[in-house]
Parts: sequence; structure tokens; C-alpha cells
Amino acid sequence: MDTYFTEYENLEVHELMLKDRPRQEAYCNAILKNKDLFKDKVVLDVGAGTGILSAFCAKAGARLVYAVEASNLATKVALDLFDENNLTGIVKVIHSKIEEFALPANAEKVDIIVSEWMGFYLLHEGMLDSVLFARDHFLKPDGLIFPSECTIYVAPCSVPALFDYWQNIDGVSMERFASKLRLQKSTRPEITYLKPADLLHEGIVFHWMSLLDVDAKELDEISFKEVVSTQVAGKHQGFCIWFDVRFPCEEEPVTLSTSPLAPKTHWKQCVVVLPKENCEVLEENSPVAFQILMKRSASGARKYNLEVELLDPNVEEHPVPCSCHMTKCILTKAHLISMDTS
Amino acid sequence: MDTYFTEYENLEVHELMLKDRPRQEAYCNAILKNKDLFKDKVVLDVGAGTGILSAFCAKAGARLVYAVEASNLATKVALDLFDENNLTGIVKVIHSKIEEFALPANAEKVDIIVSEWMGFYLLHEGMLDSVLFARDHFLKPDGLIFPSECTIYVAPCSVPALFDYWQNIDGVSMERFASKLRLQKSTRPEITYLKPADLLHEGIVFHWMSLLDVDAKELDEISFKEVVSTQVAGKHQGFCIWFDVRFPCEEEPVTLSTSPLAPKTHWKQCVVVLPKENCEVLEENSPVAFQILMKRSASGARKYNLEVELLDPNVEEHPVPCSCHMTKCILTKAHLISMDTS
Repeated sequence: MDTYFTEYENLEVHELMLKDRPRQEAYCNAILKNKDLFKDKVVLDVGAGTGILSAFCAKAGARLVYAVEASNLATKVALDLFDENNLTGIVKVIHSKIEEFALPANAEKVDIIVSEWMGFYLLHEGMLDSVLFARDHFLKPDGLIFPSECTIYVAPCSVPALFDYWQNIDGVSMERFASKLRLQKSTRPEITYLKPADLLHEGIVFHWMSLLDVDAKELDEISFKEVVSTQVAGKHQGFCIWFDVRFPCEEEPVTLSTSPLAPKTHWKQCVVVLPKENCEVLEENSPVAFQILMKRSASGARKYNLEVELLDPNVEEHPVPCSCHMTKCILTKAHLISMDTS
Repeated sequence: MDTYFTEYENLEVHELMLKDRPRQEAYCNAILKNKDLFKDKVVLDVGAGTGILSAFCAKAGARLVYAVEASNLATKVALDLFDENNLTGIVKVIHSKIEEFALPANAEKVDIIVSEWMGFYLLHEGMLDSVLFARDHFLKPDGLIFPSECTIYVAPCSVPALFDYWQNIDGVSMERFASKLRLQKSTRPEITYLKPADLLHEGIVFHWMSLLDVDAKELDEISFKEVVSTQVAGKHQGFCIWFDVRFPCEEEPVTLSTSPLAPKTHWKQCVVVLPKENCEVLEENSPVAFQILMKRSASGARKYNLEVELLDPNVEEHPVPCSCHMTKCILTKAHLISMDTS
């Protein structure tokens, strides 16, 4: 068993997730407010953990739920949970990796896959590949996946906790300490909470996918290049990355968002911090050109490296229209408006 | 170098402490609002870390500050901090354990020792022994220690996050998970934030000491036995332990408190959780009899084991007067009141 699974045997990891109210409420609402979708259906829970999502599905009316869990939580926790909630008649616990799981002989494929697989900045230390494996092997052609869509966002931002805070700690300047702290942290993205006011832009979509048709291969490397125009003035000290996932609900849609504007989740946000020499005080409507590369790490498919490169907004092509203050964009925008009104 | 010191080379540990506002404000106020105490004095900072307390002392008017730090922060961070703040003429950085430090030949002893040495529940993973060593070897007979007094408190409490929360997670009962979670956590006290409403008593003093005269030997084992009477009704699920430290100020006293009623610090509170079979719903004025033993661990002098034993309030002697609802205490109290008014 690799360490990815043994880490999940620490119940405090699950305590953290089960106390993450936005996470819990999103899954609970998506499943229990859509009982029509679950009634008499067969469900596969990929990476069932403590079993709570399988329990939601059973309570929503599913006829049969396969709770597949690779860690020993399957036998040590999930089995007990279904017994405690009188759901053993509906939920079948399978202690297995999904890649080694097989449906019973002659069993039909499943109607619905549910999974809470998301990692930091969506993909890092997540288990999307396992969900896609399950989709390809066990889901009926017209089956549903909970959640069904994911979006990753990026925005230029300030990072006061790593820069401004250290200028004056009760009268003492700690700029050099802060610089060493940033250097120590620079080997990996910072997982932290940003405030809405730290964002210089509401966020643009960096990647979108539907779990119904995305291919695991497409996740090997995701790259994105853009010029965004700041919506407020502020210190540009990094890029904030977050995600949301949406559930295929019949009535009101359910979204679980990890944005700085949404209630806090245990995923926090992911911040790529700029070297101090690249930090800049920007006015509103300043163009920020950058490229992001999110790439599977050679050290393990579940890990992703994240690279952000600042580009020169004088050289890069801007979107059309672009609301930045560069002359060519002001002229283009004016031209488009005049065409629109003529 | 033992791992205690190398852990402190992780700058994120210091980031956490430097962002602990109650900690920072207490030291800053104690030192900088008492410049009369520091003017032209010689100060020894035991375990100087990033050097911020030494910087406060220098700014408060000290003539000379020895910043003694055993980890490589001494050379990698503290030196730079004093340079950045133009204090190198006042602060001398010494990369050494305090136990291997010696004052320069013919140098006078120091007037003041400052140190932020406190660990969880005051003593666990702290470095009070080093401060007492410094006191015994380097402090003038009438010298001051910042802080100078410490008090440890204990109170019976509820622990909703480990008990009640799990009765109903969005309609699913997770009592058995909670029981396994408590078992996993039972090998060590839980370091967590309690709410004021979780306390069944405002807290009684479990141990008090003055750093001017306490002997390190007295810290090998601290035991305490008491009967407390609950001040509010509630679920008795554990004991909450916290501490405060006081500074020897001339004017308004400065206290750094880690109580559930004080602003949050990185020390949080320490909770010893009761086995579920010993948990009880208590009315106001119920007697809770217990014994606490805080003992140096055999695995290392900086670590402390904490044991709490519930005792039988029918057997144990109650304080006089006691406000609990047991007949003998009600009678004793009535008798004392009648004597007082006669």
C-alpha cells in the first residue's frame, strides 16, 4: 500500500474534512436535495473514506451503493458507519483500490459515481485519475458524476502576510527575515487564506473540464497564457489559484467554491509568490501578462508542479477587447464600441 | 545539535509566533512601556530566535543585550535583524546553548533576563530550565526576569468538537468514528481552542511560580488534587488547562493569557479528554474531584506527560467553604455565614 493511502488512515485528516462545512453542505445538498436522481439507482463511491457520501446516497434513495476505499478505513471506519446508520442493506464496502475493483459478475454498470477527490489547486494530491478510471470501467453511458464539472481560476493578487506584515513588527523591521521566509517557501506554492481585498482581479478561468469527457492524458500538463487587466489598484505580489466544482442537479445548481470570496474550506487558496524584484504597485486597469504551467510531477502522478512565469505585457497579445490602460487597447475598445453603436 | 533546536530553524515556526498578536503585544508592552527599567541596563535574551525581543530591549534603552540562540537562526536571521534595525552596536549575538555560554571575562552580570520560553500547557516543549540556568549563572542578585511569574489553571469543560459534533453530521450519525478519533488522540493531550461557553468553571490555579525563586527540580513533577464546584450546568467531557505569565512592570501590569476567555494565541488551550463512560451532564454547583499529574517525560526533559484522574467527590475532602450542592457543604457554608454575621 503506498503512503497516499496510509496517510488517510489518520482519522484527524478526516476530522478536518468532515468539519469543513462548505464541503459537507455542498455534497449533502447535491445528493439529498436531488433524491429523484438517486431513487432506486446504483451508485459507486470512489475513495469512500469514512463512508459519509455513500451514506448520503443511501439516504437519498439509492438501491445499492458500492463504497470503494483503498485504505484500511474501509474496514475500520466505513463498515461501522453503515452499521451505525442501519445502511448495511444498501451499502457494500469494498476494501480495494478502484483500479483493482470489479463489479460482481452479471452486475449492471452504475448509474452514478460520487467522489470527493479534489486536492490543493484541484489536482495536487487529488485522485481524479481514479474517478476517470471508474467512469471508463463502471459507469453506464448516460450515467452521472457528482461533481460533474470543475473550473480552476487564477488572479493576480497581493500577499500581505508574506510582504507588508514584516515591514514593521511592533517597531522592528523584519524585511530580511521575510525575504528568507519567502525563499524557504518558494519551493512549493503557499496554501493559505487570502482576503477578498487581496485580489486585484475577480479571477479568470484558467482551466475548465467536464468529468464526463475529460481524458486523464489531458491532465498531464495544463498550460495557460493570458493578459489580464487589474480591476482594482494594489500591490501585485503573486497569483492566487482556486477552483470550484459543480454538481449535476436537476433543480438549483450546487457549487462548491474555494474562492477567497466564498466561505473558508480546508483547501484554502493556492498562492504562487513573486520574487520581490518582480512585485509592483499597479493601478487599476494595468495589464498583467503571465503563463501558468501545471504539470504532473515526475515523483508521483498525484503530485503537480505549478509554475507561473511573468511575461511582458508590451509583447504579449492582449484579449480583444481588453480593458487595460495601454493605448492600443483603449483605441481598440473605443473602436469596438463605436462599431457597436453605429 | 538536538532536534529541538533544528526544528526552530524552520522559519515558519517563527512566522507563527511573530503573527501571534497577544504574544507580541505582551512582550512589546512589557518592554517598551517600561523604558525606565531598561535604560542603560545589560540584558540577556535566552533563546533569542529571530532576535525580536532583543530588538525591543535595545529600543527600550538597554546599554547591552546578549542575544543567545542555540539554533542557526543566530547567524542566519538574528544578526541580520539587528543590522537591518541599526542595533548591532547594542546587541551581541551569541550562537550557543545558554548552558555553554559564558559572559566575557570581567563583564558584570546582567540586570534583566528576557525570554519567551513557554510551551504547550506552559512546560511541555518549553525551555524554562534554560532560563533558570541563566538566572542562576548570569543574573545579578536584584535582577529582573521578563516574564517573572507564571500560573497554570485548570477547569472542567465540555469538548463539543470531540463529542457532540459527531452525533449528527448532516443526518448521519458518526459516534463510532468519534470514538475512534478520541482513541487515536488519547495518547496525548489535545491542543485546541475552546470557547468560553465550553468551560464549566472559570478555572482554578493549579500551579503558580515566581521565576525569581523556583528551582528546576520542583518542575520534575507537579501534582494537584482538588474538588471544584461547577459554576454553570453542562456536559463534563474533559479538563481544560491553560496558563498566563506576568511581567514585572512598574506601572500597569502586563499579562499574557492563554485562557479561552482571552484573545487566541498559538498556544491554544490544552484539553485532557475523558473516556466517554466518565462523561456526565452536570448541574450547576456539582462537585468535580480530580487529580492532575504533570511530570517530565523519560524520553526528554523538555517533554511533559499530563495525567488527569477523576476522583469520587463523595470520598475526597472538599475545600471550605465549598459551593457544591452536597449536603455537608451546604451545611458548612451556612454555618460559616451565620458565624460571619453573628
